[in-house]
Amino acid sequence: MTLKNNEIPYKIYLEEDEMPDKYYNVRADMKKKPAPLLNPGTMEPMTKEELSAVFCSELVDQELNDDDPYIEIPEEIRQFYRMYRPSPLVRAYCLEEQLQSPAKIYYKFEGNNTSGSHKLNSAITQAYYAKKQGLKGITTETGAGQWGTALSMACAYFGLDCKVYMVKVSYEQKPFRREVMRTYGATVTPSPSMETEIGRKINLEHPGTTGSLGCAISEAVEKAVTSEGYRYVLGSVLNQVLLHQSIIGLETRKAFDKYGIDPDIIIGCAGGGSNLGGLISPFAGEKLRGEKDYRIIAVEPKSCPSLTRGKYVYDFCDTGKVCPLAKMYTLGSQFIPSSNHAGGLRYHGMSPIISELYDQGIIEARAYEQTEVFEAAVRFARCEGILPAPESSHAIKAAVDEALKCREKGEEKTIVFGLTGTGYFDLKAYEQFNDGTMTDYVPTDEEIEASLANAPGYAK
Amino acid sequence: MTLKNNEIPYKIYLEEDEMPDKYYNVRADMKKKPAPLLNPGTMEPMTKEELSAVFCSELVDQELNDDDPYIEIPEEIRQFYRMYRPSPLVRAYCLEEQLQSPAKIYYKFEGNNTSGSHKLNSAITQAYYAKKQGLKGITTETGAGQWGTALSMACAYFGLDCKVYMVKVSYEQKPFRREVMRTYGATVTPSPSMETEIGRKINLEHPGTTGSLGCAISEAVEKAVTSEGYRYVLGSVLNQVLLHQSIIGLETRKAFDKYGIDPDIIIGCAGGGSNLGGLISPFAGEKLRGEKDYRIIAVEPKSCPSLTRGKYVYDFCDTGKVCPLAKMYTLGSQFIPSSNHAGGLRYHGMSPIISELYDQGIIEARAYEQTEVFEAAVRFARCEGILPAPESSHAIKAAVDEALKCREKGEEKTIVFGLTGTGYFDLKAYEQFNDGTMTDYVPTDEEIEASLANAPGYAK
Repeated sequence: MTLKNNEIPYKIYLEEDEMPDKYYNVRADMKKKPAPLLNPGTMEPMTKEELSAVFCSELVDQELNDDDPYIEIPEEIRQFYRMYRPSPLVRAYCLEEQLQSPAKIYYKFEGNNTSGSHKLNSAITQAYYAKKQGLKGITTETGAGQWGTALSMACAYFGLDCKVYMVKVSYEQKPFRREVMRTYGATVTPSPSMETEIGRKINLEHPGTTGSLGCAISEAVEKAVTSEGYRYVLGSVLNQVLLHQSIIGLETRKAFDKYGIDPDIIIGCAGGGSNLGGLISPFAGEKLRGEKDYRIIAVEPKSCPSLTRGKYVYDFCDTGKVCPLAKMYTLGSQFIPSSNHAGGLRYHGMSPIISELYDQGIIEARAYEQTEVFEAAVRFARCEGILPAPESSHAIKAAVDEALKCREKGEEKTIVFGLTGTGYFDLKAYEQFNDGTMTDYVPTDEEIEASLANAPGYAK
Repeated sequence: MTLKNNEIPYKIYLEEDEMPDKYYNVRADMKKKPAPLLNPGTMEPMTKEELSAVFCSELVDQELNDDDPYIEIPEEIRQFYRMYRPSPLVRAYCLEEQLQSPAKIYYKFEGNNTSGSHKLNSAITQAYYAKKQGLKGITTETGAGQWGTALSMACAYFGLDCKVYMVKVSYEQKPFRREVMRTYGATVTPSPSMETEIGRKINLEHPGTTGSLGCAISEAVEKAVTSEGYRYVLGSVLNQVLLHQSIIGLETRKAFDKYGIDPDIIIGCAGGGSNLGGLISPFAGEKLRGEKDYRIIAVEPKSCPSLTRGKYVYDFCDTGKVCPLAKMYTLGSQFIPSSNHAGGLRYHGMSPIISELYDQGIIEARAYEQTEVFEAAVRFARCEGILPAPESSHAIKAAVDEALKCREKGEEKTIVFGLTGTGYFDLKAYEQFNDGTMTDYVPTDEEIEASLANAPGYAK
């Protein structure tokens, strides 16, 4: 392999002092704002007071702030970021050569930290505000475990107690993820547990259940609101999380600016929307302000196609229906995706910001089956050297497809995608792929319709 | 936490064009050279021709080259390095603060690549020369799996076949490592297998055996010498491997030079010696030439204490006794260490270069028990954010101890250690530590003596 373009290094690193000192709040540039969260009892917008019973106060301010385009990153958080950021923007020279494509492919790699994903960017910020508020600890849920791992690391750093409710089936099948969290001092409880009212109720009604993310959310929220000095934190979906993740996009923008590059296509995988929202924020802002035009592509699994087959309505965020309602593209809170290996993309809904941008046509979306995603993952691993997470591999698949289109048409487009994490804890999935036993599953229209019937906004 | 020393960033990154373009060969600066490998049949030094039956020709030249201080890194290898190098030299500000030590602690982090360790530095070079020689493929053995993973990645990159003999117990207990190798296209065979003569013999003599590294080496060598177009490669111990790993030390030296820093203490874990030898090479060179003085500390597990309790004699490198003899600090080729979790530090011998430097007093050595090593690992993980490999954690433990000594004495020493890899595949060990069920084992003098009795150099 030879370099096509010697002036661009393999990895564009910013200096530590070039790291952004403010988050970018894309809502400030949206004329039509994302719809507010609703109180499930009154169906009125959640007030600051109501939200503050569940979330840390300063995070509630961020959640409700639709106006300020920039929000300062406190120095304590920036110091933590310096341990693993700025993350590299990598030119995928080897993948380009393998595809024989004139496209220029870049990826922003967020997996070079022990949590293994971009989740740490928001975990540290949420832990910081909890500490600043004088709390004892925080509660959360985790499915695949990336968010729980990130939060455990953040809490260890600030000396906060961390209680993680881990979906029981993951707790049992992913003991290594669990041990990383315990190593960072977190208490990890399989959910549904007998520790909370909702957990006991679910265990009683569904003996032997292996749990679900929606149920773990309900337990974590209950634990937070019934424990003195605790609040609940969430790793995706919320406005505040996308705000924190904007550091991904801001660094990407700055790294491109160093070389005078504007990407043509920006690609991210989409589960709850945290990584996609973070990566695209500054670019979506330029597009919203009419300064630039980009193709922005959200990629989701065909097994959980909230953007491509869901409805944009108010729905519950959790199966227990204790959380506020959000207006979002949703498959219904009772939707149970097949056991797709991209655990981080199995959420029934989508961030209200992403949902609104999609509805406005700022973002497009597509869905892939997992086998074709793993083909792309293995191709990428073998030439770029990084073993990607199944979630991130959805973005790889889309980038490969776009690069192949460029080859057909002889177009020299610049493509950038978010490589959100590594697949070290997903080797069961790779084993199935290597053995040729991986299967695909696409829900029927009837399944989606049945689940959506429970969404308050859709039923009406 | 506040920065003590604002002019030094958290991570010192070199630019890609500052990456070394030559390896440094410390043997050139040694007045007394490491002893040559001996033919086990004749007890005469192995000739170039004899070695070339097993190893790639250009690697044999490197193995035998005691004179040239610098050996060029081919451009193809440097391009591969650019995908994950230069690796960061990190200032452990948070660890310093937690230890309340005036010491300045740095670590050179080699874990930010999918193989999870420094092994990739030599794997790619060995694969390159195999490809250049027109070979079809290479064979090797792996214990814990880091070397096998690195070699699989390197072979995928150059389109070489890769046959890995994996110690049977690891093959069964570390299925994830095995899957990474398979994902990179390698054939992974549990050893002892029925594919080789030596494997069949061992299976016959020891039915139900779970294998050993020494046995897997014997199988891999047999497979290489009996297959057309194949050669054998090894991930540690050999001179050529330490040569390739010198890139670690050269980058470290250059990164320090950027800030006018000279370390006082340089620390590395020592199994076969590849990481330690790589990190210290340029510093040992300065010391050998009388230009500078450094304390250089090799750290090994008390369960496999080749430097601290072994003898400096000619011994077999493998249990099958088919490989050349090396003069090295050894516990005897029949030594079976207790099931210490630092799989990479369980080799009975030590690189001849490290052995000679130790014998000359250029290096000192110490040994720790695994429980105290894991205490240091967890402390490090919680404040520096990286989950370290058990092997690397030996170096962390020594760095922490040296920093605590600095606190006692009020000395502002600069300490640098090699953080060779990550612990994602070692979570069974962390689980035992977290559960409080981890045990320590130190071999008795009688056990070591019994094993050493088989070493040809010792028996005489």
